[in-house]
Amino acid sequence: MTDTHLVVFTPSGKRGQFETGTPILTAARQLGVDLDSVCGGRGICSKCQITPSFGEFPKHGVTAEPDALSDWNAVEQRYKDKRGMIDGRRLGCQATVQGDIVVDVPPESQVHKQVVRKAASDRVMTMDPATKLYFVKVQEPDMHEPSGDLERLAAALKAEWDVADVAASLSVLSKLQPALRKGGWEVTVALHKGHRDTQSRILDVWPGYYDGGIYGMAIDLGSTTIAAHLCDLRDGSVLASSGVMNPQIRFGEDLMSRVSYAMMNPGGDQDMTSAVREAINGLTHTIATEALIDPNLIFETVFVCNPVMHHLLLGIDPVELGQAPFALTTSESLSLDARDLGLTAMNQTARVFVLPCIAGHVGADAAAVALSEQPGQSDDLVLIVDVGTNAEILLGNRDRVLACSSPTGPAFEGAQISSGQRAAPGAIERIEIDPVTKEPRFQVIGSQLWSDEDGFMESTQASGITGICGSGIIEAVAEMRMAGLLDPSGLIGSADQTGTWRCIPEGRTNAYVIYDASETGGPKITVTQGDIRAIQLAKSALYAGARLLMDDMGVETVDRVVLAGAFGAHISSKHAMVLGMIPDAPLSAVSSAGNAAGTGARIALCNIGSRKDIERTVREITKVETAIEPKFQEHFVNANALPHATDPFPELSKIVSLPDVSFNTKGGDSDTGGRRRRRRA
Amino acid sequence: MTDTHLVVFTPSGKRGQFETGTPILTAARQLGVDLDSVCGGRGICSKCQITPSFGEFPKHGVTAEPDALSDWNAVEQRYKDKRGMIDGRRLGCQATVQGDIVVDVPPESQVHKQVVRKAASDRVMTMDPATKLYFVKVQEPDMHEPSGDLERLAAALKAEWDVADVAASLSVLSKLQPALRKGGWEVTVALHKGHRDTQSRILDVWPGYYDGGIYGMAIDLGSTTIAAHLCDLRDGSVLASSGVMNPQIRFGEDLMSRVSYAMMNPGGDQDMTSAVREAINGLTHTIATEALIDPNLIFETVFVCNPVMHHLLLGIDPVELGQAPFALTTSESLSLDARDLGLTAMNQTARVFVLPCIAGHVGADAAAVALSEQPGQSDDLVLIVDVGTNAEILLGNRDRVLACSSPTGPAFEGAQISSGQRAAPGAIERIEIDPVTKEPRFQVIGSQLWSDEDGFMESTQASGITGICGSGIIEAVAEMRMAGLLDPSGLIGSADQTGTWRCIPEGRTNAYVIYDASETGGPKITVTQGDIRAIQLAKSALYAGARLLMDDMGVETVDRVVLAGAFGAHISSKHAMVLGMIPDAPLSAVSSAGNAAGTGARIALCNIGSRKDIERTVREITKVETAIEPKFQEHFVNANALPHATDPFPELSKIVSLPDVSFNTKGGDSDTGGRRRRRRA
Repeated sequence: MTDTHLVVFTPSGKRGQFETGTPILTAARQLGVDLDSVCGGRGICSKCQITPSFGEFPKHGVTAEPDALSDWNAVEQRYKDKRGMIDGRRLGCQATVQGDIVVDVPPESQVHKQVVRKAASDRVMTMDPATKLYFVKVQEPDMHEPSGDLERLAAALKAEWDVADVAASLSVLSKLQPALRKGGWEVTVALHKGHRDTQSRILDVWPGYYDGGIYGMAIDLGSTTIAAHLCDLRDGSVLASSGVMNPQIRFGEDLMSRVSYAMMNPGGDQDMTSAVREAINGLTHTIATEALIDPNLIFETVFVCNPVMHHLLLGIDPVELGQAPFALTTSESLSLDARDLGLTAMNQTARVFVLPCIAGHVGADAAAVALSEQPGQSDDLVLIVDVGTNAEILLGNRDRVLACSSPTGPAFEGAQISSGQRAAPGAIERIEIDPVTKEPRFQVIGSQLWSDEDGFMESTQASGITGICGSGIIEAVAEMRMAGLLDPSGLIGSADQTGTWRCIPEGRTNAYVIYDASETGGPKITVTQGDIRAIQLAKSALYAGARLLMDDMGVETVDRVVLAGAFGAHISSKHAMVLGMIPDAPLSAVSSAGNAAGTGARIALCNIGSRKDIERTVREITKVETAIEPKFQEHFVNANALPHATDPFPELSKIVSLPDVSFNTKGGDSDTGGRRRRRRA
Repeated sequence: MTDTHLVVFTPSGKRGQFETGTPILTAARQLGVDLDSVCGGRGICSKCQITPSFGEFPKHGVTAEPDALSDWNAVEQRYKDKRGMIDGRRLGCQATVQGDIVVDVPPESQVHKQVVRKAASDRVMTMDPATKLYFVKVQEPDMHEPSGDLERLAAALKAEWDVADVAASLSVLSKLQPALRKGGWEVTVALHKGHRDTQSRILDVWPGYYDGGIYGMAIDLGSTTIAAHLCDLRDGSVLASSGVMNPQIRFGEDLMSRVSYAMMNPGGDQDMTSAVREAINGLTHTIATEALIDPNLIFETVFVCNPVMHHLLLGIDPVELGQAPFALTTSESLSLDARDLGLTAMNQTARVFVLPCIAGHVGADAAAVALSEQPGQSDDLVLIVDVGTNAEILLGNRDRVLACSSPTGPAFEGAQISSGQRAAPGAIERIEIDPVTKEPRFQVIGSQLWSDEDGFMESTQASGITGICGSGIIEAVAEMRMAGLLDPSGLIGSADQTGTWRCIPEGRTNAYVIYDASETGGPKITVTQGDIRAIQLAKSALYAGARLLMDDMGVETVDRVVLAGAFGAHISSKHAMVLGMIPDAPLSAVSSAGNAAGTGARIALCNIGSRKDIERTVREITKVETAIEPKFQEHFVNANALPHATDPFPELSKIVSLPDVSFNTKGGDSDTGGRRRRRRA
């Protein structure tokens, strides 16, 4: 038997010769094998679990005898008794090399764990967060060689973890001395180093070994809703997801009305800033409560949002974003202290990262979509549409990526719709209209049953049937068109014209009754001519934005369409195409990416390398400004119709045939048309 | 005539060939000549004034013709009309090279101006503050190449001033867009870059060209008083100096009683932190009002203080400083945001620099004294004593510097003295006692006259005669010893023993009456036996500290003694030696350095290079801990006597002869002596 032995690590395949008695953890570190450890090899953290293999391994050129590792020891037994450990596993810091051996590092023992996203796409996310825990043993103070506790802690971090240049905020300084003494000169610190930082900051300190968890939030700050994911910064898992309405809605439904509010009301921007920060503080409490964690353990928050939300979050008057040349105060990513943003519900040392904005109308939310969906890595030409109060649109492939934003308004989110409501139990989310009888059937959120199935009414008793949400109104309008209740210009026919009592007069136009419980004091849910017009405006804006990018790219078709946004996940591709929301494409080429902006925020939260990536990506994206592009107006006007199933939609004709009706006979329409013409001017 | 001409700059002697038409400022920059400019050569700031010389300069090998510079132009005339300019001066950005020329850069046109200190020492201070003003022209936004206003400002700073990596705080971001537009895309920014920063921070922004001044404060935060200097960061001039009592006094007179207060009262440290921060905010207002400046123009503050004050300022419980091993939370220098310290009276983006501490008992104030007095640069062995509630003592020369701190208590500042008061109008500050008649004469602050001169009473009418300040009590005790009213053990003789009615009984001991207006309802100012004891304890501590360092250095004498501290400036060297406050030295070798700690703070404020210097110096200083050194106790006890004019004070005998009296006959003394013995134990 020689003094050194061959150690082969799988799955990396890294290998080396080590002396008898070398701990596996030490061997792993020397070879650069990705084996986790928080306690620095003291047998406390159990992060360094490995699985030894014995026997013959011709592939690795190793024959591992059963005694190739040191015996199971008391530290390992204590850990197993206390917290449990899978049979066959060893602690890498305890087991030492005694012979040639093959050692497998299971995925959960890797520092840079790869986490499969919950969403449809199966890409993986590599853990490398800005904030990590480190356990260290600090030298005790010596009167004759006086130095501060912080300086000795920094020296320990340098010696044990090779962390140079450490600073601590005042709140940590005030906790440091008691923590060191209580922990017997051993502490765990939460250390933060952003992707552009030269210094590491101590965000918190605990006596002794701490493994109670550190958390981060990924927040998609939308004009209408604020959605947050609470993530465990150790493994990237999502512990809770929650959302609230953006309270700025009381200052204006859409972005431009909020900018106007700031213009017209001195201090109005500050009111909106306070409102949204307060809402985020509330949301922080809510999500922490939901996940049963202490909100003081939230050390990082990543924000994605459109430029107006971005400025209002930061406390900047968005007035310049309301007028050409739509100049952002700052476009690059921002690393800030949460307390400077008034975000007081999380740890007072918490850090905030805000993704970069692409342009004055194309925000950090679009950047997050780009980070999540990576159009620049796509071989085929992909159109990504993130539907919200503003739609962010990306078009591109490996060669080039274009981006723009389009002011769809809140109609797609169920706002400004007569029976509209947000997606909550009781809201109609799916609808079908029989083309012969013109009778509807529908599903509401909270029930699995269709409205014509047995037990439906019972299943909705708790929530009631309260309105239509965004995806519901899109289906309703598309179904009405397919059932011949709407003509291509968007006019609702009368009862006479359509042959159903459900088409009722409303003012000088008509409406379609989906559900009527008014006789028993319940709601009457209708789709009005005004609702149709709102959806037409929204979908025209969306379509025009996509077309504009296709013009710039010099293409007539795209290979793939990705519908992003929380809402995008619920849109039926068929109905979206019937409405003409998106360019014509084979139905199989249309997919949903879920909340891509939120996913982008999570990626930026869990991996600091991705922050650099998105900064570079954003610089490389070609920005297209819809507001000043005459062709946008042209596309917008042309897209107003609810299309025929033919030209320019050959793919659409493969899935539906649209009736060729026309109801353009009444005064009501010329009135609506007049409004439309004024918008064009 | 050739196309290029020789330009020689004085006083630097730098020289080079430049093409016809090159502005002098451009030539200066290319040669690295220290010629100031804030506006970047636009003829706005007038910082680049130079004085051309014409004629023959054999020393420089130049003959300068009268037309060697371009003609006086309209920009220069406008500036001269509006603000005035010394005849013969030119603006370096306007005057261009037309022939060989010698150009003098007057001191006020240098960026790194050298400012002669107000204090006794004539060393100069080189201006290189962390915060400076820069004027830039920013590119206007372009919708087709969208980028943030901040990013374009950063690009301009890079292009015009070679400033890389610029960040802005949120409060600056919110002002940036209006400032750029109001200034027609020209702004002035206050840019801060600390000596360890990799990034420059924009602390403020003004539309167009701003020259209204930026300021900094140098604060000596003492246990008893807080003293501040307000400095102009452009030229280092002191605009105002002001001080307040440290309100922490209500929690304890000296450091150890404040540490005890924190130990005994939960949250007591926070009360003291709030009190001192509030006082600093008040002082900021006061000093700004005095200097007639807007406190929002204060962008930097430098603090020097002892370790307990240091921790309490930072919001750290000082409990560890009250017990061995006297561990500091952090010993290195700190760069912080003023708002994180609750310092809200200055600009909200203001930065704070706290000098490093030397050891648990030797603070940033001692570091500041070292920075000001530079013992490590001294050829001869210098003893520097900074007298306050704690005395900081430095001993050293080029080879080695030692430092310690000694707990003198507040007696030297007039506190814990029966008729003591702080140095203010009405306080007796100088005193003489006739050795024959035993009659006193004295001076009070606010009057130039001695008490036995005509018109004295009138001259003190406004202030009254209210008490004795620190320097007054030292002179009083020394004079009493010289007049034979005190024996070497410190006992005051009775009227019988001394032959003067002014020695009156007080309890079991005696007191000496300096001034008695009690019959007319005025004060009766006496020096009591208790006062003598307080001074004895204080001076013994001071002397013992100095002796301890001399022991460590292995010397019996020092070459020079420097008395620092605001109070040090007022102590009479002779009286200090009679008291035995300082080791024996020729009177001519004892000097005063004024408020050396405050000067050190000013140096750190005005020159960031000095911050690096003091960090290195502090690391190199040998720290001596008095609290655990048995020899300190020994020296302390031995130093208790008020010495004879002989051994161990040969130099003292050259200036005074001290009467050999003894009053050690009364019960009162054995009582006092008993107390003293208990202290020894």
